[in-house]
Amino acid sequence: MRLAIGIYPGFTALDAVGPYEVLSRLPDTETVFVAEERGEVRSDTGALALTADATFDEIDAADILVMPGGPGARRQLEPLGPTVRWIQKIHPTTTWTTSVCTGSLVLGAAGLLEGLEATTHWGAAEALPAFGARYTGTRVVRQGKIVTSAGVSSGIDMALTLAGWIAGDGYAQAIQLLTEYDPQPPYDAGSVEKAGPEIVRSVAHLLGRTTAADDAA
Amino acid sequence: MRLAIGIYPGFTALDAVGPYEVLSRLPDTETVFVAEERGEVRSDTGALALTADATFDEIDAADILVMPGGPGARRQLEPLGPTVRWIQKIHPTTTWTTSVCTGSLVLGAAGLLEGLEATTHWGAAEALPAFGARYTGTRVVRQGKIVTSAGVSSGIDMALTLAGWIAGDGYAQAIQLLTEYDPQPPYDAGSVEKAGPEIVRSVAHLLGRTTAADDAA
Repeated sequence: MRLAIGIYPGFTALDAVGPYEVLSRLPDTETVFVAEERGEVRSDTGALALTADATFDEIDAADILVMPGGPGARRQLEPLGPTVRWIQKIHPTTTWTTSVCTGSLVLGAAGLLEGLEATTHWGAAEALPAFGARYTGTRVVRQGKIVTSAGVSSGIDMALTLAGWIAGDGYAQAIQLLTEYDPQPPYDAGSVEKAGPEIVRSVAHLLGRTTAADDAA
Repeated sequence: MRLAIGIYPGFTALDAVGPYEVLSRLPDTETVFVAEERGEVRSDTGALALTADATFDEIDAADILVMPGGPGARRQLEPLGPTVRWIQKIHPTTTWTTSVCTGSLVLGAAGLLEGLEATTHWGAAEALPAFGARYTGTRVVRQGKIVTSAGVSSGIDMALTLAGWIAGDGYAQAIQLLTEYDPQPPYDAGSVEKAGPEIVRSVAHLLGRTTAADDAA
C-alpha cells in the first residue's frame, strides 16, 4: 500500500507529520513525501524542512493521499497549477483521499469537494463554499472516500480513524498505544467555542495579521 | 529566544515536530534543528527526513533544548558520543531542557537525570534507572528546569505546558487554538492501562520484535 503525502513551501509541519506518524505504521505501507521538485521543502516557519523523495511527475498513483494545509496552501489553488493537477491525477487511483487543515482548500481547487460536506482550519471556514463545499465544525468529515479534517493537530485523529477503517480497531489501537496518544492538554482551548472570543482575538495578534483566516487560508 | 531541537538518524518524527509546532510559535523565537552534520536526517521509518540547519559544533547555547526519542536513541547513549557531549554543552546554558519519549534516555546518558523523577515511552520504562532516574507514569514530569515527557505524541502536551510557563496561559491557549488542539481520538487506547494486555502484545507484534521496549529503547 502506498501512502503519498503532498508537500509544498509554507505547509504546516504537524499537518503532514501527524498523519504520517500514524498511517506509515499500517501493514505493508510504503510512505513517500511528494512535491513539485525533489529535495528540501520548507514549512511555514522557515525553520523546518522535510525532504520530498519524489516529484509530482514521478508519482502517478497512491492508495492513501494526504494533503496538509498551511499558509502556503493559498499559493497551491491555481486550477492548472502543479499541486492541483497532481491531485487530479492521483485521486482516481486512491482508496482514500484526505486532507488536514487548509489542505481541504487544495482538494477543493482540484474540484473534489463539489456538493460535499468538508472541514478545514476554523480560521478558513469561509473559504470552503467557493469550492462548492459546505463547512462543518466536525473534527473529521468523511464523504465517500474523501476525508477532510480540521486544523493542524486534527490530522492525528483523522489518521487513527482511517487506520481503524483500513486495518481494524485492534490495529489502530496498537498504533495509538505505540504513539502513546493519550492526550492530556493542560488547557481546554482547542476550539473557537472552548477558547472564547478573547483567545480568538489573541490568535489574530499572534499571527500578526488582521484575522487568523488570512493566514490559515 | 533560541529553541534548539536535536535530531539523529532513527529519531521518531512526531517526537520532534509536536514540540516544534507549539514552541516555535512563542514570541521572538528562533528555532533550529541541530544534528552531528548539516543536512538530511532520516527518521525511524526511513521515509521522512528533516533538515538539520546547524551542527552540534555550531550551536553552543539555547534557551530551550528539545531531545526527541525513537529507535535510534539507543545509538546516542555513548558517554563520549557527539549527542551526549552536545547536551552536556547546551544544558548549562538553557532555561528549559526537555525530552520526548526515549529522548530522556539521552538526557540520562548525559548525566542530567541522576536522582530525579523522569518519564519516557512506556516500553522503555525499565531503561531509566540505569541513569539514576525514577520512572513515573505521568505524561509530563518537571524537575527543576528539566522536563521529560512520555511517548511520541506526549511532546505536544509537554510543549503546551511549557508554553504556558514561558509566555503565560493566554498565549499558550492561543497556540492551542491556532493548532486546533482539541483532541478527539476515536479510541481510548493511548496508555498501557487503557489499552489492556491484548493490545500491548499486538504492539510488540506490530514492531516485529520480542517486546516494544526493544524498539522504543
